[in-house]
Amino acid sequence: MSISKPLAVVLVSGGMDSCVTAAIADHGGFQIAMLHMNYGQRTEKRELKAFLDLADYYQVNRKLVMDVTHLSAIGGSSLTDMNMDVPDGDLNNKDIPNTYVPFRNANILSAAVSWAEVLGADAIFIGAVEEDSSGYPDCRRSFYDAFEKAIDEGTRPETKIEIITPLINMTKMEIVLMGLDLEAPLELTWSCYQREDYPCGTCDSCRLRERGFTKAQSTDPLIRLRP
Amino acid sequence: MSISKPLAVVLVSGGMDSCVTAAIADHGGFQIAMLHMNYGQRTEKRELKAFLDLADYYQVNRKLVMDVTHLSAIGGSSLTDMNMDVPDGDLNNKDIPNTYVPFRNANILSAAVSWAEVLGADAIFIGAVEEDSSGYPDCRRSFYDAFEKAIDEGTRPETKIEIITPLINMTKMEIVLMGLDLEAPLELTWSCYQREDYPCGTCDSCRLRERGFTKAQSTDPLIRLRP
Repeated sequence: MSISKPLAVVLVSGGMDSCVTAAIADHGGFQIAMLHMNYGQRTEKRELKAFLDLADYYQVNRKLVMDVTHLSAIGGSSLTDMNMDVPDGDLNNKDIPNTYVPFRNANILSAAVSWAEVLGADAIFIGAVEEDSSGYPDCRRSFYDAFEKAIDEGTRPETKIEIITPLINMTKMEIVLMGLDLEAPLELTWSCYQREDYPCGTCDSCRLRERGFTKAQSTDPLIRLRP
Repeated sequence: MSISKPLAVVLVSGGMDSCVTAAIADHGGFQIAMLHMNYGQRTEKRELKAFLDLADYYQVNRKLVMDVTHLSAIGGSSLTDMNMDVPDGDLNNKDIPNTYVPFRNANILSAAVSWAEVLGADAIFIGAVEEDSSGYPDCRRSFYDAFEKAIDEGTRPETKIEIITPLINMTKMEIVLMGLDLEAPLELTWSCYQREDYPCGTCDSCRLRERGFTKAQSTDPLIRLRP
């Protein structure tokens, strides 16, 4: 008799980090359920395609797309407010950028926990990055530690859900190298905040990704899409 | 020069508990912003009316209705799944009832924190009740304490948002008495899980409410609606 694999809900935005996170969960022996959030971002259509392509690649049976566009009712971020410009990347700016959706990861995680409890999952994988991200307070491991305690207190007594953040201390270079090592399908991912046909190359997300590939002495497979 | 009142986001479902919670916040000197969640419950239309009536009563300028029906995509609860029956109340049943939406209050709170941070609010009021509720794990103060730490870790360094749960240790009788004492407009509220025209009198929420009024030696103003 074979022992069944533990089940993990993997948060997959469709970006490179979430793809490498899924690869790590898969490699680590977890059965994967994939969860994608549509929070009304500009490039949602393209990101959703990336999510579905990744779910197919990893042969995921349980996938769920959640509409969390209620977050855009809150305002306060250029990612969800079509009237604000997305700033070009300034990688030396240590301030919290205006692409910030306040407490976004808590909203995403709460929904993931709800689904994980229904599925009986043992873990939630999220590809948050503490240092090489853009300074979002809810991307720090200390936040996830605090949130894990809230899960323990706020779910059924028998529920134990761990939040696994395998990329938390990695640089973009290390994420690229890890993705290549695990043969993660990086060509299926989408990171650009501005365009859906080819990566703009100038937004914060594009610049971080490009820098990661450059430092890893590799080439982004999406580069070939550029005109 | 007058000192401006501190601002609080008050979660208002439209039920009696949230009405008394708003009365306490108002009485406590807070300027109130009201937040209502539509998570696809059967009686949402009637609860929304109660919310709007309460916002008018307390002359609230900033009110927000959030569509969180994505939670119904998760399933696992009769409140959001039209194919499951709502059980009649069994007040001696210590099990977690199937009206349970896993981790619902965490989802609600996360959205409230996002809005509170945008507004610059100092507190979130939520009318959770630990003992006299139906045993939801995310109605306990220990959960809110844990969640407050997650807020501290997951928001901007300058953000300090307290979660205030004034009813947490009250019985329904005490909530009724508090409401009467503060002249809260209980006649504007709605608690029934099953009907929108008059309280069914048999669902868990109706029975808890009725018991509260009886023990407080008072009469529910909604009783007159019954045929």
